[in-house]
Amino acid sequence: MKGLVLLTINTKESCKEGDSVEGTREKRILLAHGDGGALTYQLIQELFLKYFTEGPLQQQNDGALLRDLPGPPVVSTDSFVITPYFFPGGDIGKLAVAGTVNDLAVTGAEPLYLTVSFILEEGLLMADLESIVASLAQTAQEAGVAVVAGDTKVVEKGRGDGIYINTTGIGFLPEQRELGYQRIEAGDKILINGTVGDHGLAILSKRSGLAFDTELRSDCAPLNNLIATILEKCPGAVKFMRDATRGGVATTAKEIALATGKDLLLWEEDLPIREEAAGASEFLGLDPLYMANEGKVLFIVQGDRAQEVLEVMKEHQLGQESAIIGTVEKGKREEGHVLLKTFFGSHRILEMMAGDPLPRIC
Amino acid sequence: MKGLVLLTINTKESCKEGDSVEGTREKRILLAHGDGGALTYQLIQELFLKYFTEGPLQQQNDGALLRDLPGPPVVSTDSFVITPYFFPGGDIGKLAVAGTVNDLAVTGAEPLYLTVSFILEEGLLMADLESIVASLAQTAQEAGVAVVAGDTKVVEKGRGDGIYINTTGIGFLPEQRELGYQRIEAGDKILINGTVGDHGLAILSKRSGLAFDTELRSDCAPLNNLIATILEKCPGAVKFMRDATRGGVATTAKEIALATGKDLLLWEEDLPIREEAAGASEFLGLDPLYMANEGKVLFIVQGDRAQEVLEVMKEHQLGQESAIIGTVEKGKREEGHVLLKTFFGSHRILEMMAGDPLPRIC
Repeated sequence: MKGLVLLTINTKESCKEGDSVEGTREKRILLAHGDGGALTYQLIQELFLKYFTEGPLQQQNDGALLRDLPGPPVVSTDSFVITPYFFPGGDIGKLAVAGTVNDLAVTGAEPLYLTVSFILEEGLLMADLESIVASLAQTAQEAGVAVVAGDTKVVEKGRGDGIYINTTGIGFLPEQRELGYQRIEAGDKILINGTVGDHGLAILSKRSGLAFDTELRSDCAPLNNLIATILEKCPGAVKFMRDATRGGVATTAKEIALATGKDLLLWEEDLPIREEAAGASEFLGLDPLYMANEGKVLFIVQGDRAQEVLEVMKEHQLGQESAIIGTVEKGKREEGHVLLKTFFGSHRILEMMAGDPLPRIC
Repeated sequence: MKGLVLLTINTKESCKEGDSVEGTREKRILLAHGDGGALTYQLIQELFLKYFTEGPLQQQNDGALLRDLPGPPVVSTDSFVITPYFFPGGDIGKLAVAGTVNDLAVTGAEPLYLTVSFILEEGLLMADLESIVASLAQTAQEAGVAVVAGDTKVVEKGRGDGIYINTTGIGFLPEQRELGYQRIEAGDKILINGTVGDHGLAILSKRSGLAFDTELRSDCAPLNNLIATILEKCPGAVKFMRDATRGGVATTAKEIALATGKDLLLWEEDLPIREEAAGASEFLGLDPLYMANEGKVLFIVQGDRAQEVLEVMKEHQLGQESAIIGTVEKGKREEGHVLLKTFFGSHRILEMMAGDPLPRIC
């Protein structure tokens, strides 16, 4: 646990923002903000339209008319229920953009548009909502996607948890971006764009009230620019991508093994991990390979081009700590396996995560 | 109140399905069904893929690759938090399809695809979930839309209310379907495709435990086929459409008045309303013009073509009780108003609903 000093353990309550000012006179969300009447109208006019300034949303129609897509559409949807909704390195608004943008980007698609739908709990601080909406809007701008349609519902206190957000992303598949399980073969290399486990460990430390001397921060970030850069600079080299979110690198790798029947061999000594994350994992008895990431992608790359891809990744701000972490091998059994070659040289079989120690991690 | 006999008043608890078998051994949703691990995988394989049999979802990628759209994309998103999630005339699954399909259809778009995202509360009966998923899939099939992407999250008991569903719809705008506020002018007629207030009153009666001799049923239905039929058979006649959901006909009309600066005059005697709905409204002291509908659209139609459109509407199964219910007039004040000419000949000003007596109606 070198490099890690446990400073304090706070009570669980202290980490839930929004509850701390119970009883003050701050403006809060009411049931009527979600009923489609005058207060809904006011919320849209005074809050949402202040941050979402793109054309289609400003029209306020039931449906947003978009420009023709330059290729076949790709869509992805995700609901975000993370607790706490503010955490080191991000918040539920940033996460709701990054999560869906990344789901589109790993298919090879270019994300263009997002829809955003809020389920608010009665009593949510208006200031918290505004902060989340501002963060969501800023992340969307950074990722180059436009928020084009929205919806707001309010549920009674005790029927939600502050705020849940659904985002649905729409993009298009540019030509010559054929990615898929079917391209994966023995000899391919496995790459990742940086350290593992940061998101899950940051949430857990925040939630449990643990404070370390070096703060663990979520890696939550939209990766569409990094991915587009790799695909453009190394055409054909990447065969498959998947973001290692819930279930972590181990579960994502196992999904690939199951879908292809191949074995994936990961090298523990090459796995990038922050010192403080390794320490926190050890302290908490958790395996960083199963901790969720929100800014990390596994790339399956043609073996003889792995070095070329790695160099491009390392030049990008979101790939500076990229590494080649394993290789694809011919499956030796009926079902594909994931094997971790440990520091000690032994091989450990990694199964799919069964029962997350951390519910509501995204 | 003729035609209406109040039979029983049940306790509030009795109307919440899913709680009634508390303590039995029936299979329920666990937190681990939403953590992205083995139980999530099992839920997808054994439940969702049984009902959603379309190609893109079966691929189980992060993003669904769709065929090129035959026109510019139109998108709409909505989260559904209705309580109770089973109600006379429908359930949250049917509603989640109808609501989003209708939002697309009223813009003139042809809906093609839906994404579906579930937020389940720990403890939800698996049988209830299956019933809702089956209903959702059936309604999607009826509406001719394919469910192409999905997501499932589970929150702790007491952080949700059984089930919330987000749907995002994607369609395209066929050529020559220019609809919009800017086309509305004095002399246009206002049409509706049937009786008002049924959805809101059905939910309220179910929620409050009221049972009348004639059951009030939600009008929840996808209207894309009705709308496409009108637009094809009467090209150019319809200038604007909006579904009269939360806030009812009155709020929807007021939105049109505000956006155009015109006055909308509604004739009370021509408003279609079921006898039992009128009776229940009177009994409960509610105005059916402010009650939510989930299968009704206001059509603004060129005055001299209103009869032609009405006839086409009446031929359709979901428009048999259609009526011309009012007219657009030159606004007499700075802001557009909605006026109801009552049975007694007087004029009542209808404002936007402020504070729904019925939260979580959709």
